[in-house]
Amino acid sequence: MMDQNEREQLMMDIRNGHYTGPTSGLARGYAQANLVVLRKKDAYDFLLFCQRNPQSCPLLDVTDVGSAIPKMMGTHADLRTDLPRYRVYRAGVLTEERTEIGELWEEDMVCFLIGCSFTFEEALLANGIPIRHQEENVNVPMYLTSIPCEQAGSFHGNMVVSMRPMSQEYAIRASLVTARFPSVHGAPVHMGDPASIGIETIQKPDFGDSVTIKEGEVPVFWACGVTPQAAAMASKPDLMITHAPGHMYITTKKNEQLGVL
Amino acid sequence: MMDQNEREQLMMDIRNGHYTGPTSGLARGYAQANLVVLRKKDAYDFLLFCQRNPQSCPLLDVTDVGSAIPKMMGTHADLRTDLPRYRVYRAGVLTEERTEIGELWEEDMVCFLIGCSFTFEEALLANGIPIRHQEENVNVPMYLTSIPCEQAGSFHGNMVVSMRPMSQEYAIRASLVTARFPSVHGAPVHMGDPASIGIETIQKPDFGDSVTIKEGEVPVFWACGVTPQAAAMASKPDLMITHAPGHMYITTKKNEQLGVL
Repeated sequence: MMDQNEREQLMMDIRNGHYTGPTSGLARGYAQANLVVLRKKDAYDFLLFCQRNPQSCPLLDVTDVGSAIPKMMGTHADLRTDLPRYRVYRAGVLTEERTEIGELWEEDMVCFLIGCSFTFEEALLANGIPIRHQEENVNVPMYLTSIPCEQAGSFHGNMVVSMRPMSQEYAIRASLVTARFPSVHGAPVHMGDPASIGIETIQKPDFGDSVTIKEGEVPVFWACGVTPQAAAMASKPDLMITHAPGHMYITTKKNEQLGVL
Repeated sequence: MMDQNEREQLMMDIRNGHYTGPTSGLARGYAQANLVVLRKKDAYDFLLFCQRNPQSCPLLDVTDVGSAIPKMMGTHADLRTDLPRYRVYRAGVLTEERTEIGELWEEDMVCFLIGCSFTFEEALLANGIPIRHQEENVNVPMYLTSIPCEQAGSFHGNMVVSMRPMSQEYAIRASLVTARFPSVHGAPVHMGDPASIGIETIQKPDFGDSVTIKEGEVPVFWACGVTPQAAAMASKPDLMITHAPGHMYITTKKNEQLGVL
């Protein structure tokens, strides 16, 4: 576990652009979050999209219009600089990656922070459940599924899932452990046959990296906070800024504070 | 437990105005919900208010603009007629009670359904925890507290709580049982000294009825879905329509479907 001073040093390094890499495994103990930034005119539909799709888009915080300060998840933060890497989508097309978004900021923008499965991975490890992509030192594999999200106004799209392979025995325990954390995607949405949720080739993830699935293991799928990026590609708002996958905002909340029991 | 046909007969009686009374104890097994209706121009702030105050305003469903059909909580429902009694607030003042709101409906209205503690009362009873206001056949006592809600745009106000007195032993078990149901207010927000949350006289509730507190019992307080009505009085939107306290919408979901574990 990292202490608060170490977290603040890391946040300074990210803010100053000295650290621009992925955040998995950093600031252990602190919850990390996905970011979505939209103009106010698109904010109502997106807020409703999150409310209707709580497994893929569990909201941790929403800033006031024009503010980049997440009051519940870091009163001293600035979400324009405090993530190592951002993605910019214009009319549904990924146009650039940046390490800060100050130049793109507009006075009517709203920031949404969405729970990240890194939180429940800590709980899985604490329960003795190994995590393959951590063992293989790669990004978690993520897939665009055929599971439709509930539409909200202009926002629609299919669910993105993350996948962790494990024994059937571990899969049952993993379901119980992650169900305690609904605000970081909660229990799995599926386990077993990838084709039944529209995944053609399990070794070709749409985001992140491929991992080994050993004999006797079952792939376990959780709703993923990259779902809004798929919704952006499908729904084509004029401008939507997100984190780059794996390059998250590190909140001031401890992972355990997000547990419901 | 009521079966589906019985629920539908009751819903018809409510829709036709044949039943206009409170819904506590009706359609046992089915989740009930608080209602808030606002114009679209106020809907974003209120949606954000709910997101920021999930204990008092846990959202079960939000209709599309102009629709009175809660897609997730009753595809055949019409929220303009399917509650036994409504309250109309104009500029923060309660101006009338009605048994339907068809005449007040406007094309840009949005309906919000918020979880109701009647759901976790069934779980308390199933755990052998007696519920005083049911024993005394009155409405649950509710109090306006000094606990501020998180403001969201124009919406602000203090939390309203419901109170159930019980032994200290039951209070611990009740905390565990209700924590399973975050979408119907979850675990208690306080137990013990009423004054420390701004309640001056426990025998004078602000809403509902007074109940007996026996020697050795502790008052246990849960966040309450009447909080939006207190916010309406404080925030004074031009027009806000709600259910009348205790006269809820009966959803098509079973109570147990709202449990997270």
